[in-house]
Amino acid sequence: MNFAIGVIGLLFAASFSQAKVNEGPFYPLPSKPPIPKDNPMTPAKIELGKQLYFDPRLSKDGTVSCNSCHNVMSNGTDNRAFSAGINGQLGGRSAPTVWNSGFHSVQFWDGRAASLEDQAKGPLTNPIEMGMPSHQAVIDRIKRIPGYVSQFQKVFGKDGMTIDNLAKAIAAYERTLVTPDSPLDRYLKGDEKALSAQAKKGMKTVMEVGCVSCHTGVNLNNPNPVPGEGFYQKFPTFTDNEYVAKYDFLKDKGRAETTKNEDDAHFWRVPTWRNVALTAPYFHNGAVKTLPEAVRVMAKTQLNKDLSDEQVADIVEFLKSTTGKFAPQSMPRLPESETITTID
Amino acid sequence: MNFAIGVIGLLFAASFSQAKVNEGPFYPLPSKPPIPKDNPMTPAKIELGKQLYFDPRLSKDGTVSCNSCHNVMSNGTDNRAFSAGINGQLGGRSAPTVWNSGFHSVQFWDGRAASLEDQAKGPLTNPIEMGMPSHQAVIDRIKRIPGYVSQFQKVFGKDGMTIDNLAKAIAAYERTLVTPDSPLDRYLKGDEKALSAQAKKGMKTVMEVGCVSCHTGVNLNNPNPVPGEGFYQKFPTFTDNEYVAKYDFLKDKGRAETTKNEDDAHFWRVPTWRNVALTAPYFHNGAVKTLPEAVRVMAKTQLNKDLSDEQVADIVEFLKSTTGKFAPQSMPRLPESETITTID
Repeated sequence: MNFAIGVIGLLFAASFSQAKVNEGPFYPLPSKPPIPKDNPMTPAKIELGKQLYFDPRLSKDGTVSCNSCHNVMSNGTDNRAFSAGINGQLGGRSAPTVWNSGFHSVQFWDGRAASLEDQAKGPLTNPIEMGMPSHQAVIDRIKRIPGYVSQFQKVFGKDGMTIDNLAKAIAAYERTLVTPDSPLDRYLKGDEKALSAQAKKGMKTVMEVGCVSCHTGVNLNNPNPVPGEGFYQKFPTFTDNEYVAKYDFLKDKGRAETTKNEDDAHFWRVPTWRNVALTAPYFHNGAVKTLPEAVRVMAKTQLNKDLSDEQVADIVEFLKSTTGKFAPQSMPRLPESETITTID
Repeated sequence: MNFAIGVIGLLFAASFSQAKVNEGPFYPLPSKPPIPKDNPMTPAKIELGKQLYFDPRLSKDGTVSCNSCHNVMSNGTDNRAFSAGINGQLGGRSAPTVWNSGFHSVQFWDGRAASLEDQAKGPLTNPIEMGMPSHQAVIDRIKRIPGYVSQFQKVFGKDGMTIDNLAKAIAAYERTLVTPDSPLDRYLKGDEKALSAQAKKGMKTVMEVGCVSCHTGVNLNNPNPVPGEGFYQKFPTFTDNEYVAKYDFLKDKGRAETTKNEDDAHFWRVPTWRNVALTAPYFHNGAVKTLPEAVRVMAKTQLNKDLSDEQVADIVEFLKSTTGKFAPQSMPRLPESETITTID
């Protein structure tokens, strides 16, 4: 893993010197993320997925929906260090934004889900998050809501009410959550004036400093995204600095917590830069409250560099240029139930 | 209070015998509830109110919005006996639906708020619900969200960022939440076929049995609604029956908990029948899980009558005919913040 990253870094370093400013290593966000062959997008499926995404009845006590922690109406997350699940319980990692998550090649901070479909099934039965006793319990519950029964039939066929299809519908909806047309995207498409002079300076700085070893590609978190293939980086790489202890970055072993392989200790899926100015607090544990501090921390822990205040300000300005347009959404109508569905 | 209700009941009893079935005591839902003179509706105010209504940053820890318990995407409530506030704390009464709440003459189960504006300010600082330390803390927090600052200025003027204006905006939005065009409404407007034969039988039954002493008027909960003037009924009136102990109806003294006047003990604002088939569980404590049981309980506790199974089924069918059309809504975009607004 380290080796691969190193090679990619060198390749980029080689290409930067001759790159025009509005070409790689950055690329405009496509209008749609990759669509898995076994889960084509249809309007009915997307609408069903949206209802499920917003439906708190998918949690044990009817208080937590996907949207509770990944709020589509704002930045796709909850502006908290740790999200709150049922009964006010706190999770152990900061909720990543759902916007543009379809462009990640793997999901969760530790990449333990190979797709949005896989991801969607996790929180449902996590005792701290949505707390359902089993996937079957989720299906049993929504079977009691006639509007879901009919929609699943329509979208997935007669025996279509399964957890895998539920996850497919949610993932199909999530793939519509794309924020195109950021100043950076407009710049990359040729509008030289879309970026301020300071943002352009910041762009140059992230190339020179080395951030772009990881933060490239369409979602600015993977130079060469391949669905299902993770792109990980060790964090923190350099631990001999004030930040690591201050923000308790070593407590969570990241990918190793899932793989149980010590070689994976402190490896993480690289987070996206897109809309990063709106998704405080930062890092897997949400320990850092502001973007300038997050930039300083990253330069020190990943590249062992101390940035000047000017460099930090320039980079922040560049990062703000990744803030895209959040498409207006219609509100789903959750199918009606004439029974209390949340008490089994 | 009892006296007034008695007189109204007599007046209705007198008029029933000669009423055509598609005239009073029921009236179609108007397209808009009464609008207070000091809070005219404007599109910008409604949009601001919608954002505030859906914004969990109005709660102490950023997890609870108005919509958490009064879910506009479904039936306007949360299908729970008691709602969950911050830190998983449970309130003591069942959340009433926000849909058509603009037609109530007073708000809360005990009518302690004279308007939606008054109501909106309550949960913000309730330690069990949204948990903000003060109204000023609410304003201080949203002052840190630039999109709110600009909208309050636009809607309410330069010094317009006050708790009263926040409540006005939320109330203005809530007044748009109306469910017209139920089968009952269509029937009352002359479409004889809008109600099934069984629903018509049920309508006759609720008149004969006496439910309509209270459940009349446009919102089916007040014969003569006057904004700010409550219409209350004692519940339970008859306590010598199995239901009162079984469902623990006497634990909560209702209006007396607010007024501290024992004369008000167990008096409650009469709940609406509109969409009642979708708003289980029932009663102030959410103790009754199904509508047929709620009908049986009401007949016994309020009128000392034991209904036959047929009567119950007919009434339920009639009550289902009050289910109106929930207008499609656009999703608000919550104004962005570049800081963590929920940690002060």
